[in-house]
Amino acid sequence: MVERAAEAFVPGHVTGFFSPHWADDPVRTGSIGAGLTLSDGVRVSVEPADHAAVEIDGESVEMEPVVDVIEAFEATPVVHVDTSIPIGTGFGVSGAIALGTALAMNERFEAARTENELVTIAHRAEVDAGTGLGDVVAQAHGGIPIRLEPGAPGHGHLDAIPTTTTLEYVVFDELDTATVIGGDTAAIEAAGRAALATLRADPTLPTFAEVSRQFSREADLLTDRVEETIAAVDDAGGEAFMAMLGESVVALDSGLSDAGYDAHRCTVHPPGATIVR
Amino acid sequence: MVERAAEAFVPGHVTGFFSPHWADDPVRTGSIGAGLTLSDGVRVSVEPADHAAVEIDGESVEMEPVVDVIEAFEATPVVHVDTSIPIGTGFGVSGAIALGTALAMNERFEAARTENELVTIAHRAEVDAGTGLGDVVAQAHGGIPIRLEPGAPGHGHLDAIPTTTTLEYVVFDELDTATVIGGDTAAIEAAGRAALATLRADPTLPTFAEVSRQFSREADLLTDRVEETIAAVDDAGGEAFMAMLGESVVALDSGLSDAGYDAHRCTVHPPGATIVR
Repeated sequence: MVERAAEAFVPGHVTGFFSPHWADDPVRTGSIGAGLTLSDGVRVSVEPADHAAVEIDGESVEMEPVVDVIEAFEATPVVHVDTSIPIGTGFGVSGAIALGTALAMNERFEAARTENELVTIAHRAEVDAGTGLGDVVAQAHGGIPIRLEPGAPGHGHLDAIPTTTTLEYVVFDELDTATVIGGDTAAIEAAGRAALATLRADPTLPTFAEVSRQFSREADLLTDRVEETIAAVDDAGGEAFMAMLGESVVALDSGLSDAGYDAHRCTVHPPGATIVR
Repeated sequence: MVERAAEAFVPGHVTGFFSPHWADDPVRTGSIGAGLTLSDGVRVSVEPADHAAVEIDGESVEMEPVVDVIEAFEATPVVHVDTSIPIGTGFGVSGAIALGTALAMNERFEAARTENELVTIAHRAEVDAGTGLGDVVAQAHGGIPIRLEPGAPGHGHLDAIPTTTTLEYVVFDELDTATVIGGDTAAIEAAGRAALATLRADPTLPTFAEVSRQFSREADLLTDRVEETIAAVDDAGGEAFMAMLGESVVALDSGLSDAGYDAHRCTVHPPGATIVR
């Protein structure tokens, strides 16, 4: 008998704009907004162990949402994470690790949960830890998800922009999600709702990039470096926006290298989170 | 300016069991059930033309659901279809062509529809033509979809078995979907609801194959060749089931070649329908 497969891939997810929504129940908590899922992301594999542990690129770490995910199963694993994008820079890495752990544990330990159940476990863990509000449901979907209603499957409601693109990104520094979404978010909420209304009226990539830029200005989240970089891409005839929430810039097509930046390149990732072997 | 991309890939979809549901509104009509989406499927590309036309593997055809999809746009295309699986044999080819046409037309003619809107257009066209009830929503999702509630996005509700597998299939002959789902379907409905309840209690691939076999017996849809083939795979230690609706057999892993059959081989296709260039 061959040992059961237990590796998951979860795409990175970069939110262009959002509006947070809190409820007493974490499965009804989340965000509306829109973003891109990326072919860059995390690989998560699990194996049985005496004590649960999480290792990112070989180093042992403490990650509250992943601990919560592990506790939803009757098993103690070592979780190995291999990530091509850094944590805390706006690419949904914590959500990707939480969801990848749920998928890989379900496969390895034959837990017989459905996709919606695993997404719910990972979404709840992210909300409880304050590390994210909408990445997990977007990463489960793949492509270019529009989050119409907040929350886990059965509560939240998604649509998507049905196209694909190559894209580029640069990472300057981290921003702490918990600090930003834990403070006064009135300006973010108003700007996020306005951006979603405009995108729904014209659900295309150029409009997504435009309303995302406008959102980051109105919500007062731009840093000087991000603002300069977006302007440089614009001057070179491209389209860029700030990654929520990190000091990072994402451009459609070759917008950043056209403007002279040394950027990472990847594509939109249609599959969403999957078991890969 | 480079011409906009306009080719879509839509996976084949083989339903293992189902229960039809009819409503006055085609977007509320559909089926519950479960199936596998396949890496074998159809490629659909469109280009502007003076008169709308559909060509499958280079031959001009009349396809009612595709005509309906074309009429939902302000453009007349030639639709080129390249399919690796035959129509009418239980692999959702008509739904794949309808959905692929919707995706490719949206991209080529910059129609600015969302994913849910395009899936709705294709689902409605399939229901109106009587060619399918659940393939389109499954093909949009990818993976191993469970159709919990019937209908187009906003009405239907999907979950999935969060794993993947290689699989094999043999095709003996066509069955006419419209004849089977247009007749007395009381036995199908009862067997389909029972199969879904069992699968929800243990959402795994072996249980999916088992309840699908049981469904085809209880709904009295097995032909002699299909029954013999499923039994031969079982004797060789494998798992197989009948494709709804075609005289075709699908086996998990290498079940058919292990039993001595010359079978097509492919994998589950996580992405669902996508624009590919």
